[in-house]
Amino acid sequence: MDDLIKLAPLDPPVLDVVRRRWSPRTFSDRPVSEDDLRACLSAAQWAASTYNEQEWRYVVARREDRKRFSKALACLVPKNQQWAKLAPVLMFSIGRPTFSRNGKPNPVWQHDVGLASGQLVLQATALGLYAHQMAGIEHELIRKTYKIPPEFEPVAGIAIGYIGRADDLPEDFRAAEVEPRTRRPLSETVFSDEWGHPGLIAEASGG
Amino acid sequence: MDDLIKLAPLDPPVLDVVRRRWSPRTFSDRPVSEDDLRACLSAAQWAASTYNEQEWRYVVARREDRKRFSKALACLVPKNQQWAKLAPVLMFSIGRPTFSRNGKPNPVWQHDVGLASGQLVLQATALGLYAHQMAGIEHELIRKTYKIPPEFEPVAGIAIGYIGRADDLPEDFRAAEVEPRTRRPLSETVFSDEWGHPGLIAEASGG
Repeated sequence: MDDLIKLAPLDPPVLDVVRRRWSPRTFSDRPVSEDDLRACLSAAQWAASTYNEQEWRYVVARREDRKRFSKALACLVPKNQQWAKLAPVLMFSIGRPTFSRNGKPNPVWQHDVGLASGQLVLQATALGLYAHQMAGIEHELIRKTYKIPPEFEPVAGIAIGYIGRADDLPEDFRAAEVEPRTRRPLSETVFSDEWGHPGLIAEASGG
Repeated sequence: MDDLIKLAPLDPPVLDVVRRRWSPRTFSDRPVSEDDLRACLSAAQWAASTYNEQEWRYVVARREDRKRFSKALACLVPKNQQWAKLAPVLMFSIGRPTFSRNGKPNPVWQHDVGLASGQLVLQATALGLYAHQMAGIEHELIRKTYKIPPEFEPVAGIAIGYIGRADDLPEDFRAAEVEPRTRRPLSETVFSDEWGHPGLIAEASGG
């Protein structure tokens, strides 16, 4: 499984969990302990949010718990079900688009759910786990399955587990699994004076 | 400044950067090095995103660079300007609400910007820095100031620096600065079967 350790080619060095984190589709049979899941969810809980709204909620299903897991798996789009059926844990993040204190629209509700899930995923990485986040979920089915109140909205799915082997995946997914991770150069992401003009910070690194 | 080390009261233990991260309004005069900023932005760059869209961009201004900093400061709502004027670095996250390959709406664009900014902020924490993220920004002024193309949207502001002293803040902000960090118990955040019913994971921890 060493070939599935895909360190981000980062200079200068960054947090080890950032370098190691990527989104596999293959997971081993090894179950994830409740303590480890609790640590991941606690890490999410302590993310920043506007007015400390904590707009995030999570629904969690472990594979050992067959009935719950089947319910969760059905809430993924068919393509994701093909590989996620072997993930030890499935979660959904759910957010609140309006402020709890006055019902007005919260312009950063989804951003804040992302902050929480980002901490969740890095905590998983610190524990030797991998997470694959998914936009491909069945929003209305999630709402119905978990009786989600109208003031909340499903955001994303997250599969979590120990890493498996690319060969164990359905054939369609194997090639992508061993591809290197790639990103835009920093000079196309970070600007100073105006759009499209990299600042000193991005220029000096060249990528 | 030891009283401004506010470790999240977490059991089980989580990543040190998650425990230490909080959002101060007081920053010391000490400038942030370009290498450290580059590390923070690189950490953002390697976040997960749907179809590897990397929906995020960042605009960065350092306080030493007075003209750029004034421009950035003016893009915060007045209340945030009061304290952020002393922050060594101001950034804005900007996202792309549509897929770059087909122009269709991307349902998780803001979530993915949150994933990137979450990694940015934890990287800052690892470097001994603190970040304060802000929803209170002037979206239209940011768009105009940085000539942001119509297919992108400003999301949030981020002030970054080394921590200062609560006493150096304008009086209105001092009390909040030394308040303990609080969060909902995990039992109100994590559900299994249906909404409002904590799963085993949350029940076992009691908060």
